[in-house]
Amino acid sequence: MNSKDAFCPVYLSQSEPFRWQGVSEHVYKADDEVSSFKDVTRRKLFIDPDKSGIELRYFEIAPSGHTTLEKHDHIHLVVPIRGGGSCLVENKLYKLELNDVIHVPSWAWHQFRASDDDYLGFLCLVTCDRDRPTLPTKEDLDLLQEDASIAAFIRADQVY
Amino acid sequence: MNSKDAFCPVYLSQSEPFRWQGVSEHVYKADDEVSSFKDVTRRKLFIDPDKSGIELRYFEIAPSGHTTLEKHDHIHLVVPIRGGGSCLVENKLYKLELNDVIHVPSWAWHQFRASDDDYLGFLCLVTCDRDRPTLPTKEDLDLLQEDASIAAFIRADQVY
Repeated sequence: MNSKDAFCPVYLSQSEPFRWQGVSEHVYKADDEVSSFKDVTRRKLFIDPDKSGIELRYFEIAPSGHTTLEKHDHIHLVVPIRGGGSCLVENKLYKLELNDVIHVPSWAWHQFRASDDDYLGFLCLVTCDRDRPTLPTKEDLDLLQEDASIAAFIRADQVY
Repeated sequence: MNSKDAFCPVYLSQSEPFRWQGVSEHVYKADDEVSSFKDVTRRKLFIDPDKSGIELRYFEIAPSGHTTLEKHDHIHLVVPIRGGGSCLVENKLYKLELNDVIHVPSWAWHQFRASDDDYLGFLCLVTCDRDRPTLPTKEDLDLLQEDASIAAFIRADQVY
């Protein structure tokens, strides 16, 4: 299924918390050439390319795991609904608690990390029509790592 | 503020659960001519008319309260994040638990109710560009009420 295939059930109930009936788990970006992530799963909850253009996903990062450090033209709207963690957006770090609202603006570097002792599960809204992510170059990483707290936060070893 | 004014903070943290820093409470539809709702507040969490066209709101219904019974061309995507309740969508009733996903399709009658002993708080996604709701006529209500369970569920007395 690609992002252009509609998936618009009226009611998605859960078989257990954070697991929805009839929604399968994907390993995040398993089909990408470069996969700079750790312990992340993804579930597609709603895809409406025709009427609203909205797509809703649920990402779950296992303790100490992280998403890929990346940027792109499309935006993310993120709401944590399980556990906790932290994230980089542009050049700032944020602590993530349940029901915070995080907006990743266009072309902002971003990475999400679960805390060391809990999962981080979050709803992530995007438009169905969106570009593919850009990964950091060595120069991008050098620039980001000029800030010591960001250098300590980011996980991008797998890119090289 | 109308739906065309952008509100796109990178990070909305909470002063207490379900209350976001710098986000004010509105009584649901206080400026509508007809207000067929009970004990509902609304918070606008994200409005992006330019880039994604997405708007995210948080509605909170006090115990035994309900939203307006209505329908419209635009869709809703709803995720309960506080308490519980139930809803009508089209001609079916659904129990609402945390993190269920409810899609209100175009022109489907819908109404949300909190349970009698708890709040129902939910995220509600819409597109920024959307039409105004249509309220039921007496004929619409008669049709809906042909189903006894729906007749017992809906709250539309204020319309007449």
